[in-house]
Amino acid sequence: MSFFIKRLAIIGVGLIGGSLAQSLREQDLVGEIVGMARSANTLETALQMKVIDRATHSLTEAVEGATLVVVATPVCSIVPSVQQFVPFLSKGAVVTDVGSVKGNIVHACDALMPEGIHFVGGHPIAGRERAGVAASFASLFQGSRTILTPSPTTHLPSMELVRLVWESTGSKVETMEPAHHDQVLAATSHLPHLMAYSLVNTLSDLEEDLRSEVFRYAAGGFRDFTRIASSDPTMWRDICLENKNAIIGIIDRYIATANHLKEFIGRSDAEAMFDFFSRSKTTRDRVLAENKNLRGDAQR
Amino acid sequence: MSFFIKRLAIIGVGLIGGSLAQSLREQDLVGEIVGMARSANTLETALQMKVIDRATHSLTEAVEGATLVVVATPVCSIVPSVQQFVPFLSKGAVVTDVGSVKGNIVHACDALMPEGIHFVGGHPIAGRERAGVAASFASLFQGSRTILTPSPTTHLPSMELVRLVWESTGSKVETMEPAHHDQVLAATSHLPHLMAYSLVNTLSDLEEDLRSEVFRYAAGGFRDFTRIASSDPTMWRDICLENKNAIIGIIDRYIATANHLKEFIGRSDAEAMFDFFSRSKTTRDRVLAENKNLRGDAQR
Repeated sequence: MSFFIKRLAIIGVGLIGGSLAQSLREQDLVGEIVGMARSANTLETALQMKVIDRATHSLTEAVEGATLVVVATPVCSIVPSVQQFVPFLSKGAVVTDVGSVKGNIVHACDALMPEGIHFVGGHPIAGRERAGVAASFASLFQGSRTILTPSPTTHLPSMELVRLVWESTGSKVETMEPAHHDQVLAATSHLPHLMAYSLVNTLSDLEEDLRSEVFRYAAGGFRDFTRIASSDPTMWRDICLENKNAIIGIIDRYIATANHLKEFIGRSDAEAMFDFFSRSKTTRDRVLAENKNLRGDAQR
Repeated sequence: MSFFIKRLAIIGVGLIGGSLAQSLREQDLVGEIVGMARSANTLETALQMKVIDRATHSLTEAVEGATLVVVATPVCSIVPSVQQFVPFLSKGAVVTDVGSVKGNIVHACDALMPEGIHFVGGHPIAGRERAGVAASFASLFQGSRTILTPSPTTHLPSMELVRLVWESTGSKVETMEPAHHDQVLAATSHLPHLMAYSLVNTLSDLEEDLRSEVFRYAAGGFRDFTRIASSDPTMWRDICLENKNAIIGIIDRYIATANHLKEFIGRSDAEAMFDFFSRSKTTRDRVLAENKNLRGDAQR
């Protein structure tokens, strides 16, 4: 029997890598699945759950003979991992990643690929509040969106292979230039997260007498607004390091907008305030109406 | 039969006023309920729902003979309404309001009260996404919080009466100085709302090519984070007009915090970013754990 993917290597068996492996296995699209992780616990769980067939702590061992290598580590580890395993890849292998920032990664990985081995940048948008392989499941990507980020040197047949892989999981695949992807994600995902973190810290920096009362009253709206401020600090540190320019650009715009609103309030400009709030309400209602059929939570 | 409240006047029969009337009626705590509203439709609905016994468009007629007057109009209309009906109040009447900003209102209403008639500032924290008397129901305040905001001249027996009224609805009643209330609400409710509005407007001000893609990807996190940016623009304009100083103070702090984060990102300071995010996550998790038993959504 011949499989669509003869041997799949998952570098970093977590929520995303584990769910992808389960989905491909369920569909009988893959021969052998090799999983690499640093933690022995993770590998043991992945084997027990039958997410992977074979486990290893070695990057180089993991990629040997693999036809598709999916790098699903935290964003800051993607380029260093690829750098380390690239001499051990088999001819014809396709390497892809799932990083939520793409510019630097695509640029660096393109440059690392030897003749006959191809890199395709990818970003399945399917974050969840839980992480780790234990939380992974085959239908995670059903109804989600995946963005592939080809560069001018991307090998198109390899990109088509990666597209088919993600489409098979039930994800809607689109393509974007890497830098454009990073701007879109900075605006839709990174900015809201950073603003929610900033809000919580603003409140915790209040004077003691006010702060204690503030937190006693900070239920409902606060809970919704700041849910995303309970995400993993390490992940967000890494995203900020990798997507620095786009993030700074959008924070600047945000602060400028907030300053405008502050000016309207400062001069009691009722009309300008009303316009500001109305425009926002109209936009938000329209966006949600347009997107009501897509899950695609831009969590990270 | 003698009722706890012989005649209740609800000035502005909407979600809050209507729900309070229903709760008091259900408990047999009130003799007659007179409802005042500008819209004929509202009054008709209130009569049909048996929220009120008698309807009027006239402020002065509404308060005649009332033992308790609850002003449940939009915040900017509270003082003008009180000003208009005050000559028609009966001796011994207690006047209270439900405004989500208190400083100016308490100050102005205290000054307006003649000898033997008393004002007590109140704020039941129980907003809902729906508004209007049609959405009102007797148990709206069950498990909520109500803040009473006495001033140095507040008549304590009148405050105790208002406290009993709110406690009877199932709300937990606390007291705060008016200015302190306004700072607490600026931080827990007004700031998150204004920041959500600013976020949506930041995205809608992006260049066309980026904006269209941003809104296609702006689902999940965006939906949660910006839910409160679909609130009523008129209400938020009024809150900003009424709570100007506290709101400007907290926006300034927020922008300073966001600027710090921007600086950390700008100089790729991994440690400072990690601390920033960790502190926020820890705070948020602790706040929600401490408040898990209280509904009290600080919606407005």
